[in-house]
Amino acid sequence: MIPASPLAYVPFVSVQNMMGLVHQTGIETFLTELADHIEEDFKRWPEFDKVPRVASHVPGGVIELMPTADQALYGFKYVNGHPRNTRTGHQTVTAFGVLSEVSTGYPVLLSEMTLLTALRTAATSALVGRYLAPAGAQVMAMIGNGAQCEFQAMAFRAICGINRLRLYDLDATATEKATRNLRAQGFDVTPCQSAEAAVEGAHIITTCTADKQYATILTDNMVGAGVHINAIGGDCPGKTELHRDILLRSDIFVEYPEQTRIEGEIQVLAPDHPVTELWQVMRGEVQGRRHDKQITLFDSVGFATEDFSALRYLRAKVAGTGFVQALDLLADPDDPRDLFGMLARAAPGTGA
Amino acid sequence: MIPASPLAYVPFVSVQNMMGLVHQTGIETFLTELADHIEEDFKRWPEFDKVPRVASHVPGGVIELMPTADQALYGFKYVNGHPRNTRTGHQTVTAFGVLSEVSTGYPVLLSEMTLLTALRTAATSALVGRYLAPAGAQVMAMIGNGAQCEFQAMAFRAICGINRLRLYDLDATATEKATRNLRAQGFDVTPCQSAEAAVEGAHIITTCTADKQYATILTDNMVGAGVHINAIGGDCPGKTELHRDILLRSDIFVEYPEQTRIEGEIQVLAPDHPVTELWQVMRGEVQGRRHDKQITLFDSVGFATEDFSALRYLRAKVAGTGFVQALDLLADPDDPRDLFGMLARAAPGTGA
Repeated sequence: MIPASPLAYVPFVSVQNMMGLVHQTGIETFLTELADHIEEDFKRWPEFDKVPRVASHVPGGVIELMPTADQALYGFKYVNGHPRNTRTGHQTVTAFGVLSEVSTGYPVLLSEMTLLTALRTAATSALVGRYLAPAGAQVMAMIGNGAQCEFQAMAFRAICGINRLRLYDLDATATEKATRNLRAQGFDVTPCQSAEAAVEGAHIITTCTADKQYATILTDNMVGAGVHINAIGGDCPGKTELHRDILLRSDIFVEYPEQTRIEGEIQVLAPDHPVTELWQVMRGEVQGRRHDKQITLFDSVGFATEDFSALRYLRAKVAGTGFVQALDLLADPDDPRDLFGMLARAAPGTGA
Repeated sequence: MIPASPLAYVPFVSVQNMMGLVHQTGIETFLTELADHIEEDFKRWPEFDKVPRVASHVPGGVIELMPTADQALYGFKYVNGHPRNTRTGHQTVTAFGVLSEVSTGYPVLLSEMTLLTALRTAATSALVGRYLAPAGAQVMAMIGNGAQCEFQAMAFRAICGINRLRLYDLDATATEKATRNLRAQGFDVTPCQSAEAAVEGAHIITTCTADKQYATILTDNMVGAGVHINAIGGDCPGKTELHRDILLRSDIFVEYPEQTRIEGEIQVLAPDHPVTELWQVMRGEVQGRRHDKQITLFDSVGFATEDFSALRYLRAKVAGTGFVQALDLLADPDDPRDLFGMLARAAPGTGA
């Protein structure tokens, strides 16, 4: 067996190592540092090559590739969304991602991203909340208590100081699960019997349900003046959560309009309905919240730069630690033109 | 440390294991079986979701994602093309790929594809050669003797019975390398001093150079009646190998016109220049070679279904062998809605 060259190995972060890294860092510190990286990249938005993600709509779900690049690094994520997966013990969303050097095209990091996506989605929501939520916000309603719920709560506490939660899910066992997990983290949690009850007195409303259909999680009369809505679940053509009238009363903030108009809540509005791009708010070029009666709405769908930021953060974080393994992913012959010679000279029977 | 569930693990084929598998199978058998899978999938072409690959053109090269799916499986490949990489000891092309279940979106195979791409590109060329090369073809000219050269030769011998080769490369050391490797495999090899000399008496002309520019590897007077041209290298906008007049004298066969018109030799022709789709030839719906004076041209760019076929073949081939490892790539909590609980309950310090 010929030993592989160093160029052959790609640093790999497994699920176990991702969990270890998050614990060692502390989840709230991790979310805060991650949000800082996401914010840095939003602030240099024009430097990125951007394209709506490439979605394959398959029966029961969607499989997406989300690439982006700056001058130095290229990143992409593979992610699926299959709402019925939970019936067979599978996750609705699984993901992994890769970061590569632009100059050579060689991957420099492969990572699990099921956990990292949950973390970056929450970090992005809370980062946006810091710009848009009403001053002095203390209470968040959370409608949809599935896999993303607790991550959102942790991020909003770490980044926006929110500790009081009002939970509701159509499936009461999901609310029980989230209540148990979040009380264990020291949150003041009120499980509610209806979405109407959950939003009572809330300054921030987070919707994160998973059904791939036009649903109405929030109706117009449930949303009072001054609220910030963090709409996570509407992220696919044909999948929305909010009544159209709420959209018409709100100022709508988006990641990347070209993608959000296809996938977000605003897919039900006219293609030229005005929206504000978050990178401009973060750069201070456009005002976010203007007054305390305004309804702000983050129509979150998740964009490739957020995954790029997460991979960039992770790469720096695992460098030199035990949380990364070397994966024999790239054939790398001594003479780069002699790939065949490398194969021909490899001893037979090198099965691991 | 909580043991991961079986759903968390994705079968992974490393470079070492790919080499071991190819040796155990025998490279010509491997190429033949691979070509059979590629042919099977071309013959059921309408069953695939097809889209031109998603290319990020970066300074010095390109990084591409190539997805496709049928009703049961989704596959994609990551591949770069950086012609100047060899100057720094890197491969021009590296690749890896993933196969997933459409019903759940879960990956079921991750594999190195630098070697597998070289093999599938060669297998596709030879498969197409079997349909289009003139009857009784015995001699192949190969212009461009880089990493892909020997794989092409092996495939044309395994699938079309070609054993006589005439080699030329601008870089004489590349020709020396290929000559050495191919004589060791029992080929009758003639190294040549010019492209003109190489094509003399050849029934098949394979061009596989790597420069990302409009180059003229073949001029019109070099191509005689009855020849089959296997044009591998023109596979990017701005990267072609053949003089336009050759294209105008040839009957042109392509994988997926929507992609080839962007990337192939035919990018220099009118967007409605007639081409024949290979899947129709393989299904017997359209004639391939019609007579022995005809110049046939395979304008190869490489399409996602070929990688899909390769991954499908590989998955069956490694099942139950030692050539596959289990990679901890997917977070998979006991309760799929309780991703946070899985993270929260993981013991700290699980670094590998």
